[in-house]
Amino acid sequence: MARAWCLTSRPRGLPTPDNFALRDIPDAPLADGQLRVRNRWLSVDPYMRARMNDAKSYAASFQIDQPMTGGAIGEVIESRLDGFAPGDIILHMGGWREGGAIGLELMPRKLPQAALQSGMSPQTFLHNMGLTGGTAWIGLLRIAAAKPGDTIFVSAAAGAVGSAVVQIAKAREMTVIGSAGGAEKCEWVRELGADAAIDYKAGPVLDQLAAALRTLEKPGIDVYFDNVGGEHLDAAFATANDFARFAICGMIDVYNDGRAQEMKYLIRAIPARIRMEGFIYTDQFTDCVDEFYADMGGLIASGAVTMRETVQDGIAAAPEAFLGLFSGDNIGKMLVRL
Amino acid sequence: MARAWCLTSRPRGLPTPDNFALRDIPDAPLADGQLRVRNRWLSVDPYMRARMNDAKSYAASFQIDQPMTGGAIGEVIESRLDGFAPGDIILHMGGWREGGAIGLELMPRKLPQAALQSGMSPQTFLHNMGLTGGTAWIGLLRIAAAKPGDTIFVSAAAGAVGSAVVQIAKAREMTVIGSAGGAEKCEWVRELGADAAIDYKAGPVLDQLAAALRTLEKPGIDVYFDNVGGEHLDAAFATANDFARFAICGMIDVYNDGRAQEMKYLIRAIPARIRMEGFIYTDQFTDCVDEFYADMGGLIASGAVTMRETVQDGIAAAPEAFLGLFSGDNIGKMLVRL
Repeated sequence: MARAWCLTSRPRGLPTPDNFALRDIPDAPLADGQLRVRNRWLSVDPYMRARMNDAKSYAASFQIDQPMTGGAIGEVIESRLDGFAPGDIILHMGGWREGGAIGLELMPRKLPQAALQSGMSPQTFLHNMGLTGGTAWIGLLRIAAAKPGDTIFVSAAAGAVGSAVVQIAKAREMTVIGSAGGAEKCEWVRELGADAAIDYKAGPVLDQLAAALRTLEKPGIDVYFDNVGGEHLDAAFATANDFARFAICGMIDVYNDGRAQEMKYLIRAIPARIRMEGFIYTDQFTDCVDEFYADMGGLIASGAVTMRETVQDGIAAAPEAFLGLFSGDNIGKMLVRL
Repeated sequence: MARAWCLTSRPRGLPTPDNFALRDIPDAPLADGQLRVRNRWLSVDPYMRARMNDAKSYAASFQIDQPMTGGAIGEVIESRLDGFAPGDIILHMGGWREGGAIGLELMPRKLPQAALQSGMSPQTFLHNMGLTGGTAWIGLLRIAAAKPGDTIFVSAAAGAVGSAVVQIAKAREMTVIGSAGGAEKCEWVRELGADAAIDYKAGPVLDQLAAALRTLEKPGIDVYFDNVGGEHLDAAFATANDFARFAICGMIDVYNDGRAQEMKYLIRAIPARIRMEGFIYTDQFTDCVDEFYADMGGLIASGAVTMRETVQDGIAAAPEAFLGLFSGDNIGKMLVRL
């Protein structure tokens, strides 16, 4: 018997604990092509909010009263799937649960032995070597085509994706301005190497961004890595250099309320010839996974890229860990440890 | 003596005739490297509004009490510039005036003899073979990478740029939905070959665009060619197919008032992986002028691309011709004939 979190009703606006229920999932014999897994780490990520809607989105919606899915690290207990054996540590999408039977539809992948033997912790594949680090790497280097010497602005810079962006950019000799909420997070963003950190709770983003650019003696930004939308995105349009590139990764500001975004500086897309592009990690990942593992693995091994983990313990804590993403509870990657 | 329109004060919001004055420019001996030209056709274009501001923009601002500039077709009267002789018909940027001395800074270029001998009217180089047609061709085919089978949405489809977009797209076997203001313009957009025309004055753009897509049995748009911004741009975000491309050419809706644009569907940039890119004709033109002349010349010669001209006569009419662009007075290209 393993327990799994199910979505019991579709949230309107910010989800609440009432939208979720922890249910017992009876064990059943494994079918051919399935693994039985015991999960050790579960990932909670902002993109999951979109899957709680019924609306057409990039990911299939979670079904009511079915276990939710998401990134997880687990150990194989029993295998009827070629290439997997008991004891294997795998990354898969059967998260939000203690474990159970999973098939290829949940994308099991063995963690590289070399990485584990080098001392990399398995949950790194839920952040810097996985979804959030991959999103940072793809968005910064592929979508925004950031290059040494560029000035980078990144929002939610103390989050899992943003903190990876800051560090990858610094390792590539870019100038980095990160935005985060509160003094503690800003301090960490600076510790990660950012040239400036602005606290969006302390005043208008545009004023602070413009002041940081003046201090750094930079005329504007070449790249904006967007995790939040809204005021930050508008400030990026306001301060963009000619031919700036915006990688649009998330808009957590408006995930829950769906309100219109007031874009006063969007018109600068024309005179500054700004290219803005939305992207999703999974579109690109297969193409570049080897390059990403090699590059990011090297950055992690050298200490150039690190991660702070905010850890909640026990399967019962998963919804509150998830909800904490929207109230800014996490520094770095929010994880649930089983 | 030739007369020229000077900007006498910077407009706030919509310009008025009081912002302009027609002044006498005394003749002076030509310097080396100059031409004396008598203008025959002047172009007025929405982008000129931005040059009337003092603000940093992509084009140098017009100077107060100096002749404004813009596209013009003229005849060379006297030449001290190699490669030009009296009688040559040239395209140049010394518009807003009857004529006078111009140098290389105003980019004189002889019209191709072959085109004139084939019966193409000289002012075609102020629209389909020039700024507006080139903007349409570059934006549609290069920036948005539109291809046969794509569904195209274009705003201001009865304007000079938009009407060229409609026709180029139809010549390339795309499905086209054009938006224009009023029944007469919509009728012309349909005559140009658009599969559907929507009248933005008759109701919400999004409702009408969604209805047109249903009628055409298309799930959404692959390309948006934006001339107006605002409600049209938001409707494009709302209806974009995955991997849609938006070529942002103009935002005439907000040129004059600078208000914030309310973007309710901008967030779809992420799930639909939309790429939005602002562009300027002059960045791209040098690279592709030969291909553009060959391709567009062929489309014009075959009758696949035509243009309606809205003509005002006499130098005195130039400001009202320009102001008419913002009240929707023109169908097709607005020109001043001298």
